[in-house]
Amino acid sequence: MSITLCYDFAMSDELDDPGLAAWKAFIFAHTAVVGRIERDLAAEGLVSLTWYDVLTALSGAPDHRLRLHELAQQVALSRSGLTRLLDRIEAAGYVRREPSPGDRRGAYAVMTAEGEAALLRAWPTYARGIAHYFSDHLSDEEKGVLIGALRRVRARTLTTREPDR
Amino acid sequence: MSITLCYDFAMSDELDDPGLAAWKAFIFAHTAVVGRIERDLAAEGLVSLTWYDVLTALSGAPDHRLRLHELAQQVALSRSGLTRLLDRIEAAGYVRREPSPGDRRGAYAVMTAEGEAALLRAWPTYARGIAHYFSDHLSDEEKGVLIGALRRVRARTLTTREPDR
Repeated sequence: MSITLCYDFAMSDELDDPGLAAWKAFIFAHTAVVGRIERDLAAEGLVSLTWYDVLTALSGAPDHRLRLHELAQQVALSRSGLTRLLDRIEAAGYVRREPSPGDRRGAYAVMTAEGEAALLRAWPTYARGIAHYFSDHLSDEEKGVLIGALRRVRARTLTTREPDR
Repeated sequence: MSITLCYDFAMSDELDDPGLAAWKAFIFAHTAVVGRIERDLAAEGLVSLTWYDVLTALSGAPDHRLRLHELAQQVALSRSGLTRLLDRIEAAGYVRREPSPGDRRGAYAVMTAEGEAALLRAWPTYARGIAHYFSDHLSDEEKGVLIGALRRVRARTLTTREPDR
């Protein structure tokens, strides 16, 4: 069982590694809070957060349309992952695909009026969940540190090269 | 277009609402960092983080086995979402399902030796990504605040009732 020992050691070493402890606090909080918000949205028949992210990205784009590769980048999905997701959102009538004339690789995703309405319907429940499960439990000082630290993490991650392999 | 205005107002109001700004920093950092780590794992043919979470949950359980409803709770998936995910992980040979004698509702998921090996293969790349994209960009003080604040958020979320509807 030395292989298990080795693994357990790596994952339970957070007393000696505040970076790993911070990561685990970060992803475990994300899983818990997002899970609860998803449950609340589903209980009211509203769009899931994954769909919400796609619709929000389109909502912020000119004419509510984005090229598929831009959309994939914004929601951090692979092209194949986005294709499967868009199939379902399109079947619900919230998005339609539009070919780009003269450019087979440049298809667009466009949010429909039904998609915009679904986004608006979901927001009050989503906003209530953000407060109830997340921000109500943070002090003003903690909110400030989270904003500064996590915006920096995102900015560095988006601009950093892949690590050497 | 008053409907769009109303939505944009709600989402861009973060100057007046540090709680919403903290939430956006939190989920955008999560999307960016997890997206990069997923890319690194995929580039090396390793398991995705979703699979990793399932295998980690099983790895921490006695005999590497959990009842399906316990596993769903730990990885914050619906039972139907977990069923689809387990179908794929089982097809890869990393998990097998075992019926619970005399209890049709109480099936187990069990991690196989191949699943444990896949978890171990992925860890070095995952650990490098945590440092490179996340913890290297945080001060010791920020790590401390994140650990305290986000552990509290998770604990409160797991014990809080649903908000009144």
